[in-house]
Amino acid sequence: MKLRLPLAAIAAGLHPLPHDAAAYATRVHRLGPGDALVVFDPDGGVEADAEIAGVDRRAVTVRVGELRPATLLPARSLTLIQGTGKGDKLDAIVRDATELGATSIVPTLCERSVARPEGARALRWRRIAVEAARQCGRGDAPQIAAPLPFAEALREGPAGALRLCLDPAATRPLGAALALLTPAAPGAAQPVVVLVGPEGGLGAGELSAAEEAGFVRVTLGPLVLRTETVCAAVLGAILVRSGG
Amino acid sequence: MKLRLPLAAIAAGLHPLPHDAAAYATRVHRLGPGDALVVFDPDGGVEADAEIAGVDRRAVTVRVGELRPATLLPARSLTLIQGTGKGDKLDAIVRDATELGATSIVPTLCERSVARPEGARALRWRRIAVEAARQCGRGDAPQIAAPLPFAEALREGPAGALRLCLDPAATRPLGAALALLTPAAPGAAQPVVVLVGPEGGLGAGELSAAEEAGFVRVTLGPLVLRTETVCAAVLGAILVRSGG
Repeated sequence: MKLRLPLAAIAAGLHPLPHDAAAYATRVHRLGPGDALVVFDPDGGVEADAEIAGVDRRAVTVRVGELRPATLLPARSLTLIQGTGKGDKLDAIVRDATELGATSIVPTLCERSVARPEGARALRWRRIAVEAARQCGRGDAPQIAAPLPFAEALREGPAGALRLCLDPAATRPLGAALALLTPAAPGAAQPVVVLVGPEGGLGAGELSAAEEAGFVRVTLGPLVLRTETVCAAVLGAILVRSGG
Repeated sequence: MKLRLPLAAIAAGLHPLPHDAAAYATRVHRLGPGDALVVFDPDGGVEADAEIAGVDRRAVTVRVGELRPATLLPARSLTLIQGTGKGDKLDAIVRDATELGATSIVPTLCERSVARPEGARALRWRRIAVEAARQCGRGDAPQIAAPLPFAEALREGPAGALRLCLDPAATRPLGAALALLTPAAPGAAQPVVVLVGPEGGLGAGELSAAEEAGFVRVTLGPLVLRTETVCAAVLGAILVRSGG
């Protein structure tokens, strides 16, 4: 696979690379004049073939070809509402969710959220998502909001979505809920919103609020999984249902 | 949830706890005489209610009640053959796979395995699996072999299993293969063997050898996922198919 570089607002023609991207292309990947790469705009879902046009001390210049829609985009709108937790758990979840096709990630502060990350963390998570998209070949990256209060987070995601709330005590298996999901047809796949609590799970009041907001409580079985395992397992099952 | 402690070869009656378990119960969880816990044998799939009978400087003694079959065991035989990789990736995979119901984990040395862990690592992985089982409430822990050469690893798993080889270049979606899998009925679920390559994937010769050994090549889609993401996503999809 050719080196892929994320670039904001790409356009055809000659452009200097931002400093970080220039260093990455020439020092880590040792690209030089004439070497081919692909540039992509993770916000716009567009990409283009490009080549290194010139390297000197002050700048690395790329010649960007015609823009085209990104080759690999998620087949379905998939919003992950995720309770915030300790340490760098959300970093790992952002990485997994990007690879597994989340189109929007909404961190939320729950009753049992022991960590309450500042809004500025959203910039860091977005960088992690863009890097994960670059590595896995995905042509866009999920939108990531600053952490929202739980009641606001429940309103996220498009109308008409299948809304699922993971709860080990639920009686309905996730598989039964996913069986109702139409396979992803281009442009016509039903959106999905998945709500996963923090370590320790959602509180009783939060589960009720989720149901009132249209979420169906579903279970992956009686074992008490870590929140990051729940995320990857559920998104994997949805990806498979989407034809992955 | 009561504290769960893994104990080898448990039997009803009064027993001293091994040193580590004693320290964990009394210092970390601050249990004292009369406090209830559950002991389980991760090799035998049996468990029992227990209580702390005595604590003194030299020993912590537990009174173990009648043994019973473990309440929560995987619904299906599920063997994960996993290419070894860098650093502690396999530690994370063992943890995920234990939570998601793997019954056997077979690390294997592949063409592109940059790390070739020694056989002694299997003891460490087993400890990680037992701890993951304890935390998630599972009554057993997966068997974990020392790393095997690839050709030998391909022979692992029970006869009659659905054998799946993850390959981003495959044309058959994982979902199509899983649709053939019968839902897990008690005692009658079809076994599954899943083969996941190391970072960088399986080589062409390895893919052919897997097909000759009865594996079906399946894909989670065209994105190039990290090997640990593949494991969690695939095992999640199988768990959902098993009624989880």
